[in-house]
Amino acid sequence: MSNPLITPRTPSGFRDYLPEVMMPRERLIAAAQHVYRSFGYSPIDTPALEFFEILSGKGGEESDRLMYNFEDRGGTRLGMRFDLTVPLARFVAQHASDLGMPFKRYHIGTVWRGERAQRGRYREFMQCDFDTVGTRSIAADIETALVIYELLRTIGRDFGGLQEFTIRVNNRMVLSGLLARFGLSDKSGLVLRALDKLGKLGPEKVAEEMVASAGATPSQAAEVLKLAALSGGNDEILRQLEPLMAGSELGQEGIERLRQTLRGASAGGVPEGYLQLDVSIARGLDYYTGSVFETFLADLPSIGSVCSGGRYDNLAGLFTKQDLPGIGASLGLDRLLAAVEELGLLPKVRTSAPVLVTFFDKDRLDDYLRLAAAIRSQGIGVEVYPEAKKLGQQLQYADKRGFRVALIAGSREFEAGVCQVKDLQTGQAEDAPLPADRSGDSPLVAAIQRLLQKP
Amino acid sequence: MSNPLITPRTPSGFRDYLPEVMMPRERLIAAAQHVYRSFGYSPIDTPALEFFEILSGKGGEESDRLMYNFEDRGGTRLGMRFDLTVPLARFVAQHASDLGMPFKRYHIGTVWRGERAQRGRYREFMQCDFDTVGTRSIAADIETALVIYELLRTIGRDFGGLQEFTIRVNNRMVLSGLLARFGLSDKSGLVLRALDKLGKLGPEKVAEEMVASAGATPSQAAEVLKLAALSGGNDEILRQLEPLMAGSELGQEGIERLRQTLRGASAGGVPEGYLQLDVSIARGLDYYTGSVFETFLADLPSIGSVCSGGRYDNLAGLFTKQDLPGIGASLGLDRLLAAVEELGLLPKVRTSAPVLVTFFDKDRLDDYLRLAAAIRSQGIGVEVYPEAKKLGQQLQYADKRGFRVALIAGSREFEAGVCQVKDLQTGQAEDAPLPADRSGDSPLVAAIQRLLQKP
Repeated sequence: MSNPLITPRTPSGFRDYLPEVMMPRERLIAAAQHVYRSFGYSPIDTPALEFFEILSGKGGEESDRLMYNFEDRGGTRLGMRFDLTVPLARFVAQHASDLGMPFKRYHIGTVWRGERAQRGRYREFMQCDFDTVGTRSIAADIETALVIYELLRTIGRDFGGLQEFTIRVNNRMVLSGLLARFGLSDKSGLVLRALDKLGKLGPEKVAEEMVASAGATPSQAAEVLKLAALSGGNDEILRQLEPLMAGSELGQEGIERLRQTLRGASAGGVPEGYLQLDVSIARGLDYYTGSVFETFLADLPSIGSVCSGGRYDNLAGLFTKQDLPGIGASLGLDRLLAAVEELGLLPKVRTSAPVLVTFFDKDRLDDYLRLAAAIRSQGIGVEVYPEAKKLGQQLQYADKRGFRVALIAGSREFEAGVCQVKDLQTGQAEDAPLPADRSGDSPLVAAIQRLLQKP
Repeated sequence: MSNPLITPRTPSGFRDYLPEVMMPRERLIAAAQHVYRSFGYSPIDTPALEFFEILSGKGGEESDRLMYNFEDRGGTRLGMRFDLTVPLARFVAQHASDLGMPFKRYHIGTVWRGERAQRGRYREFMQCDFDTVGTRSIAADIETALVIYELLRTIGRDFGGLQEFTIRVNNRMVLSGLLARFGLSDKSGLVLRALDKLGKLGPEKVAEEMVASAGATPSQAAEVLKLAALSGGNDEILRQLEPLMAGSELGQEGIERLRQTLRGASAGGVPEGYLQLDVSIARGLDYYTGSVFETFLADLPSIGSVCSGGRYDNLAGLFTKQDLPGIGASLGLDRLLAAVEELGLLPKVRTSAPVLVTFFDKDRLDDYLRLAAAIRSQGIGVEVYPEAKKLGQQLQYADKRGFRVALIAGSREFEAGVCQVKDLQTGQAEDAPLPADRSGDSPLVAAIQRLLQKP
């Protein structure tokens, strides 16, 4: 009669989130929401499925290949969103008159990419973006730096061990200015692609590539490499940039915007050292046109940038003639979660309530429920073990889940009006009187709170 | 040169969430998370895409037809989840030994159904489920009622106007007991399907259908209808059920479980009247085997049940031989949001920060940023208008977004060390000294807080 069992498993590149990982993920999301809201970014959401032609846009073959897409029963080709930027462009173009400009939004949502699954690369992941659309003002660039700083600071407070980080800032106008002076403006993509390999190939090979692919002269290539090699403190780099940008209006503007960004971020509360000018970051290749940001964890730089973004022109040119410049960045939730795991900072807790009411007198269920409700009404999470079982078994369950406190009472205790409060870390227990009702404090609640406040 | 524009739009059955709708949606989700956690349910997540064979299971043709599915580039057929229950079954079967039983989880996630889009029916919506797996104990049934009550109570507090609601409870064992006595156990699906039309067709036609489709005798059909028609207070209905269940062990157990559920819910804090026994609810047809719950808003019953669920046997029989009974329910987030809209309870606010710092002296950007940071550090959300524009334009923006307070300062004010605090509801303004630094209270912060606390 019975069919063979189906093996329960997820497709390659997809994963389940168990409670011990999902709980910190929810904390990261809550931290991001809190920071975004505190700067006045408003939430939006868009469908996971969009018209294929909208998501593919002018998209290269590559993005089409990466996008999950199919025909629905009505013959419409739909695609699954592979980022939150194309949906933002479509959203803003569609609702511009209703939204009004400038428009600041955050968007936390899942995206999918049908690429070959690699170690640590998933086909489904969550993006956590914030953007300001409709303004070229430097105020938005500065605010982007402030938000990145507050995000990492908030997360660092939540997860001890992630406290130290560096935000690197650059402005694409600086390199563009240099290239314009060389008459190489239309080759900037090729120059950037070569520059991107600096770490891997070294300066000589990169210079050769610039000459070969972008048609730079050897001395121009040398000057580009000199620019990318500038190092030192922020003021020092700014000083060294000046002569390199002489005669380039664009380059001068880039320097000025970097200077304003650094000064504004300091006024807005970013302490010395957290925001570092780094002329070598070339993030986003052709996409970004002004400020670019990357963020690295001091304890785990190898995991890559955990918050990146920049300024772009003309977000929604495929959908509207309205000029919509903007700036934004994306918090790498999954990467941060991986960092938390890798640094051993995951709490070994799989319950979202710290208190377990054990249940071993099956005629007293209503009393256990009354007890739990009294504590829960004081803002403390409580689970009632659902079956009347041996205490040992329930304490094992409590241990496995990571409960902090167990409440233990049987008929005798209920008749005496007391209850045992057990510290599950030390094993010590004390008696406390049962709360009389569900309102107000009680010695029992106070005893629990004392235990919950212990480190 | 330029390509024709692509019209920005979403496919039929899909929608964007603009800030004014997304903000209450986030509040609803936060309320659900808060309540679930307070009872010890832990969050999980599963992929949007699963193997087609897993989602279709033994599934009828209908569920296959409703499911978006496609072959990926590797030739694997994937489906998009259409609920969170099948993924839960797969998840629990796959991770059972790691999770341990009983297992309590909540899961808030998007699901997709490729059905023909109707008015108010979307192809993409969010589910918000909680379940307790691995126990038949009545404690889990009672807790389900408690959670539903706390969910609605919490949401009612957040959205004035949704305060009044009724949870209807039934137990499928009662009807099953009656049908077993009639020798109609294997026809219960057909009987339920007929019973489900009671409101539409009336008792006569329903009795006819039971006779025709399920092979009931006319007197058996009459007794089923008599059962479904029981009304009155909870105790009254229980009393009337007793004789109808005489001779049916299953029916007796159903009565006993209903009685325990009502008593336990009362002990756990559900006030008189919020939990009503309703023998006519037949929710879930064949799926549920014990308790069933539905929840209706007093001010908008026509919108249907906003929180429904029940007890089931053998959750994961397709994937494992382990016996996994459970109970759970689903909060109808989208339906609640629709209710909030329909009852005119949507706040006209599109900003997540209540305070706007206006910006009209472009040489003072750093001062505006400093001011905003000082207020933000006190836990108050602040947006800095990103461009130096005319005050009137910025106040229009503030009005459109629904800011509560505007801070206004120019060179003169900064030199005098003051700032205007403008109540955007009344238009009244007062001067307050600029905060000296970012720590501690200041008269300015106090003035803002006074305004934010006004109703």
